Amino acid sequence: MPDEPFTITAAAPLIRSGELTPSELLEQCLRRVDVYEPHVKAWVYLDRERARRDAAKLTDEVKTNYRGPLHGIPIGVKDIIDVFDMPTGCGSKLWANSYARRDATVVDRLRQAGAIILGKTVTTPYAFTDPPVTRNPWNLGRTPGGSSSGSAAAVACGMCLGALGTQTGGSLIRPASYCGVCSLKPTWGLVSVNGVLPLAQSLDHVGVMANCVRDLALVFQTITGVAADGKFYLGSGSMPVDCVAPATDIADDQPDFTPLGGLFLEGTQDVMAAYDRTVATLIGGELRHEARYRMPSEFADIHRHHRTIMAIEAATYHRERLDSRPDEYPTNIGQLIRDGWQYTAADYRRAELYRDSLQEITRRLLAGSFFLTPATTDLPPGLESTGDPRFNSPWSFLHTPTISLPSGFSPDGLPMAIQLVGAFMLDEDLIGAAAWAERCLNIRHRLPPVPA
Amino acid sequence: MPDEPFTITAAAPLIRSGELTPSELLEQCLRRVDVYEPHVKAWVYLDRERARRDAAKLTDEVKTNYRGPLHGIPIGVKDIIDVFDMPTGCGSKLWANSYARRDATVVDRLRQAGAIILGKTVTTPYAFTDPPVTRNPWNLGRTPGGSSSGSAAAVACGMCLGALGTQTGGSLIRPASYCGVCSLKPTWGLVSVNGVLPLAQSLDHVGVMANCVRDLALVFQTITGVAADGKFYLGSGSMPVDCVAPATDIADDQPDFTPLGGLFLEGTQDVMAAYDRTVATLIGGELRHEARYRMPSEFADIHRHHRTIMAIEAATYHRERLDSRPDEYPTNIGQLIRDGWQYTAADYRRAELYRDSLQEITRRLLAGSFFLTPATTDLPPGLESTGDPRFNSPWSFLHTPTISLPSGFSPDGLPMAIQLVGAFMLDEDLIGAAAWAERCLNIRHRLPPVPA
Repeated sequence: MPDEPFTITAAAPLIRSGELTPSELLEQCLRRVDVYEPHVKAWVYLDRERARRDAAKLTDEVKTNYRGPLHGIPIGVKDIIDVFDMPTGCGSKLWANSYARRDATVVDRLRQAGAIILGKTVTTPYAFTDPPVTRNPWNLGRTPGGSSSGSAAAVACGMCLGALGTQTGGSLIRPASYCGVCSLKPTWGLVSVNGVLPLAQSLDHVGVMANCVRDLALVFQTITGVAADGKFYLGSGSMPVDCVAPATDIADDQPDFTPLGGLFLEGTQDVMAAYDRTVATLIGGELRHEARYRMPSEFADIHRHHRTIMAIEAATYHRERLDSRPDEYPTNIGQLIRDGWQYTAADYRRAELYRDSLQEITRRLLAGSFFLTPATTDLPPGLESTGDPRFNSPWSFLHTPTISLPSGFSPDGLPMAIQLVGAFMLDEDLIGAAAWAERCLNIRHRLPPVPA
Repeated sequence: MPDEPFTITAAAPLIRSGELTPSELLEQCLRRVDVYEPHVKAWVYLDRERARRDAAKLTDEVKTNYRGPLHGIPIGVKDIIDVFDMPTGCGSKLWANSYARRDATVVDRLRQAGAIILGKTVTTPYAFTDPPVTRNPWNLGRTPGGSSSGSAAAVACGMCLGALGTQTGGSLIRPASYCGVCSLKPTWGLVSVNGVLPLAQSLDHVGVMANCVRDLALVFQTITGVAADGKFYLGSGSMPVDCVAPATDIADDQPDFTPLGGLFLEGTQDVMAAYDRTVATLIGGELRHEARYRMPSEFADIHRHHRTIMAIEAATYHRERLDSRPDEYPTNIGQLIRDGWQYTAADYRRAELYRDSLQEITRRLLAGSFFLTPATTDLPPGLESTGDPRFNSPWSFLHTPTISLPSGFSPDGLPMAIQLVGAFMLDEDLIGAAAWAERCLNIRHRLPPVPA
């Protein structure tokens, strides 16, 4: 198993040259499913036979119609995103057998690019913070994070080489970081949410998890842009799906970081010490510790306003259903919805105005550079929680793109990660900066230990 | 029961004045469900408690916020159209528990107008011609027609006062006529298909069934036009949802008919004799029998080209699923899909060009007038079939609006009906003509006999 590729970047040239067929790559992934899945529980639906049929077709097609770097790559899809004729369970009991009648726009884009949709990955109920069945592959007693829990765990174990997830607070960056994989939350609006269960529409982002930064770029360039069905969104960034060229060119120069911004509170001692070491590796001793936690005072209320908008928008969608089917809602999401119903229109408007003003301040702070922060405030806690999203939710609120990547392991073997924050719409620059950081840190990727 | 209203036109003023509450009207409908449903089997999903909650809210609201003529009116929705948190079974076994995560655009429009969505009405599998479980309420050994079988039967029994259906061949006009209710298939594109299972996208229409022509207009004006969510279509015809005024003004003048056009083949003797009597009632003795079946020769291939397009478009959506889940497809729809896969792109293009030329000819033939035909070629056959759509499918193919309305009963008590065909986009004129015909014919509506 060690020599088998678990990045798209490694697998794609082998598939193109014929050294590895899509069917062989799929079987490698399925063997990892056999090994890890009984313990990790990353998948809610996995269709081996359909995947094998797709892989066989794509194997035939390589020579005559190579579709690009995602040709024959097994991908997992978070279970709030529609995949044709698979259920979209959304972590709900009642919806567990609700079969989608069409692909979400992002899934359609992946298929056109030749990806194999392996199945649906576990989400927390309705993509909020109630704990999932999935376990952290690095320590089965710890949470994988949420809400894109299964996507993170599946990619970490190489059961698929990339996965789609979503983030409304910290639902991509947090689980990716807890599980030791990379994640991209794009600029809000750059990726279609058509066919995706809403949690809070002005905060919801579809994003990517994978095992290296270049892989994030390969999937991102496929799912962003205007869809063929015309059902899209705002924003630009359209890149042709049939693009066979390498992903986004990645600059070699050191980008200009503002590492000390972007912190709204202190992480645990372990996390902050590791962060300091990482910053030192990346950009030498130029730390300005005295400013480390000092975001401008205007940011003080950001978590409160994020929660206000999330609660109101979640209640707008879910409230009536919570009334008629209370058993379908576990504690945290139920409380969010009930809270959301209590707010006034003025509360919502105030939170929107607050966001407007902070977006303007962030634009000025970030001009030409990036924030560099720990990806999470803590190491993955136990299974009763999905962890703390407070380093991530501000950027969901402000719509700026973020990337997380592994920065090493804690003394007891748990993954740690950093988060880079880029300016609104400058996702490609952010990918370049993250790739640079990845090269500097030079963390050797490995699969989690095989469970006993 | 005889004095209880079973038209929207009769119920709406009573609700507005407070003489009848939405809750009382709902209970009347539910009593009819108790009486007829065990025999007729019109519903695949019916949520009494949700409907009662909605009716209670709408009852409270009448005095302060009367929403218009659909306020508090129970409506049925064909089971290929999404209703939030009810299953959209589409006549499929696997999809029978597939809960919709949002309302179809047309359902959202009905709710905004104050309608009560009572439940989902039986569709044939995937809205094609394989027989449904539903029975004709006028004779339980006969078919109700299809594919909007449950909508027709439910409206005929007054279990709801209106229903949504769809038509790709003859799926609105045929079952409505067999069951003795009115139906409108609007101009193609005037009503959103967002949230509706496709059968053949260039032929699919969402339409209405109800117990009088004015009711058709009331529902039609609510569901047509650009939706608030921006997810729409081509065409115009937007009317405000909160319109409290009476429906489309209906002229009193006799419209200009071309009753002898619109026939592509001969119906049964019974049907043609009744048709001749109806034409005589409507427009006196001015029949030109000699021209009765003579559509221009260009129309000779219309049924073949309709089937070609329907098969190709159905195969585009269903083919892969038919391969992976053959048990999900009964005989007729399975054959349609397999046929569709055999055609070439040139076959499709030829059928499109044929349609273009016939649309032009139809425009000239119809200028300022209407075709008047029997609504169906025959009386409802037995349960092994859904009947013959050949008087209806040409207008699905050509996108022109059609209305059917009852013209009386056959000697053995089966409903008979006529069909009016209007020019593309002139749906309101067609409604006016149909209302005039309804007044002239003066058929007294009654409920089917109560099954023993």
